[in-house]
Amino acid sequence: MPTDFAATRDQFHLPEGVIYLDGNSLGPLPHAAAARVAACVTDEWGQMLIRGWNAAGWMDQPTRLGNRIARLIGAEPGSVVLGDTLSIKVYQALASALDMAPTRRVILSDTGNFPSDLYMAEGLCRTLGPDYRLVTVAPEEVASAITDEVAVLMLTEVDYRTGRKHDMAALTALAHEKGAIAVWDLAHSAGALPVDLAGCDADFAVGCTYKYLNSGPGGPAFIYVAPRHQDSTRPALSGWLGHAAPFAFDLSYRPGAGIERMRVGTPAILQMAALEASLDIWDRVDMADLRARSIALCEAFIAGVEAACPDLTLASPRDAAQRGSQVSFRHPEGYAIMQALISRGVIGDFRAPDILRFGFTPLYTSDADVHGAVAILAEIMAMSSWDRPEFKTRAKVT
Amino acid sequence: MPTDFAATRDQFHLPEGVIYLDGNSLGPLPHAAAARVAACVTDEWGQMLIRGWNAAGWMDQPTRLGNRIARLIGAEPGSVVLGDTLSIKVYQALASALDMAPTRRVILSDTGNFPSDLYMAEGLCRTLGPDYRLVTVAPEEVASAITDEVAVLMLTEVDYRTGRKHDMAALTALAHEKGAIAVWDLAHSAGALPVDLAGCDADFAVGCTYKYLNSGPGGPAFIYVAPRHQDSTRPALSGWLGHAAPFAFDLSYRPGAGIERMRVGTPAILQMAALEASLDIWDRVDMADLRARSIALCEAFIAGVEAACPDLTLASPRDAAQRGSQVSFRHPEGYAIMQALISRGVIGDFRAPDILRFGFTPLYTSDADVHGAVAILAEIMAMSSWDRPEFKTRAKVT
Repeated sequence: MPTDFAATRDQFHLPEGVIYLDGNSLGPLPHAAAARVAACVTDEWGQMLIRGWNAAGWMDQPTRLGNRIARLIGAEPGSVVLGDTLSIKVYQALASALDMAPTRRVILSDTGNFPSDLYMAEGLCRTLGPDYRLVTVAPEEVASAITDEVAVLMLTEVDYRTGRKHDMAALTALAHEKGAIAVWDLAHSAGALPVDLAGCDADFAVGCTYKYLNSGPGGPAFIYVAPRHQDSTRPALSGWLGHAAPFAFDLSYRPGAGIERMRVGTPAILQMAALEASLDIWDRVDMADLRARSIALCEAFIAGVEAACPDLTLASPRDAAQRGSQVSFRHPEGYAIMQALISRGVIGDFRAPDILRFGFTPLYTSDADVHGAVAILAEIMAMSSWDRPEFKTRAKVT
Repeated sequence: MPTDFAATRDQFHLPEGVIYLDGNSLGPLPHAAAARVAACVTDEWGQMLIRGWNAAGWMDQPTRLGNRIARLIGAEPGSVVLGDTLSIKVYQALASALDMAPTRRVILSDTGNFPSDLYMAEGLCRTLGPDYRLVTVAPEEVASAITDEVAVLMLTEVDYRTGRKHDMAALTALAHEKGAIAVWDLAHSAGALPVDLAGCDADFAVGCTYKYLNSGPGGPAFIYVAPRHQDSTRPALSGWLGHAAPFAFDLSYRPGAGIERMRVGTPAILQMAALEASLDIWDRVDMADLRARSIALCEAFIAGVEAACPDLTLASPRDAAQRGSQVSFRHPEGYAIMQALISRGVIGDFRAPDILRFGFTPLYTSDADVHGAVAILAEIMAMSSWDRPEFKTRAKVT
């Protein structure tokens, strides 16, 4: 039975008068999340108190929810665990990956990566010592830059600004051919399109849940470790909940079994409750249906904008196969245009220097949203030449 | 005006029939936290969506709440920031501290430290290289073990098992005298007793908020950096929200001003909302009053138990000045005794191998709680000799 996207849309709270095209930044509230979080607070924390760790299953949430995310990203059961933030998970994955290539010192990434991934890599290299370094090339130069000096290839599959999508299977194979480990950031992939970590033979992956997975502001991140690496990787962030026996309170660290060792400290239980409610919706979604619907929405938006707004330049790949689930346009006055859009209820976002970014999220984006957004954008573009000096004032009063 | 602890007690949800003496593990639910979290979910996430980062003040919560915790721990304004878990904050503090003593390679700690602190130190040493090592001595040997080889003295002020309290001022002074940096873990101090980080000249401190500060399961941790170190420390976990200009999306890391640089990734906003509600209660508490009341509760419990339960041996220091805000007793059958207590509604906890642990938390622990807990413990101890083989069965059916 094909996924019923009208039914999934009914599961979300979408404020009146808003066309929300920023679910690639923060997903909207699933109705059930409000009740689920309230129950977690009142019935679990309030009534069970400390007993909630076992009685309410808090302790196992990170692996239980990890297994539900696994399906969405083509991961094997028992290979995903939730926790911390994406930046912390990047650090963990990189440290484990560098450990596996002990004679190499280079992390290779690209300028399309989300900056925090690069910053965390910088920090790790500095801690490891002066021989270690991060090399960053343009996205289209990645393949040719994978030399046998590279210990780790660290890439975000889908570019946060343009939506440009790397070929995970090909680049992972190339990395392996050169003896490097592949670490993939799925921030703009998980819940945006089908991912096949196992099929691509990825080594490590990380991602966040507050974008397409709708877990709410500050929802937990996740990490994937390929089953073949799980029992040999020694966590750099060796916290007690990754210990083989956390409640034995041993004085020395012994890594836990499998993916459990990538846990660090006490999980954020209220955030996990919100994620759980969202995953109840995801459990009903077929990823191939999601991709087809995502492409249809993106194509309709591109066609509409290009027909009505000749001053905007497509910044995303035109070929849907090369794109994630967002569409970006460039305009020198992009910031002011986005402010005008937001003031008219069309919420996308702006990324410096000139990118207007629109996320298309089949679970709740409707055809009417696409047409409405195109119409309002066309009105805004028509109301001013946008190259006259007063445009900023205009945008403010719109 | 002295703190009104009957009034603070009214601010908490305490389940019927429960005497809760485990607030040193997970604090109970403040009534207002339920409403505050619900508003964060429904009115902020639900209605504001991505705009909540500015409109609801989410982005500044980690420093705003840090400043409210600062008063409770004697920290200067602008020296505390919330985020991540305690284990992650330990790693950050240690990495920054080691950086400041570049010719030294030893982290000194004690066997009374919480194991995760030791595990994180082990992991950091391993990442830094084979010269780095963690040395762990008995708590009473710490002072004499601070040699001029020690880069960092890392201690938890109050022992999680026994409540034994280190002399922060004296040990910090001794560390400084030997050229070492002092990192204090306040897990069992923050909200348990007055702490004077500035007065003790501490360099770094870390702590959690889900124990005495009642922020709920998985509430955020905090880190303190002495103002004199803030602008020179270079974060090892260099995430984007610690960048000088996170939304410029630069490709290279530049640390943010002051304490902001210790931020890493996206903060857990629902957990922060719960903490905010709890801090509204803390704002009305005088720390000297808290300490006096804590000592009175602990002394009454010790006297009551020692009079009624001769088989239990006090594991905490008898001198209140040497103790945090908990009392521990030893018994070879401690686990079974604690199970029996819990089944009668007295919730403390057990720590291997033989420790019964009871937290006294003036904000909501009443004199009646103390007397009730003593009476039930006395009944349990009297109902069996606890050295007969069937005690476990007995405990189960109690």
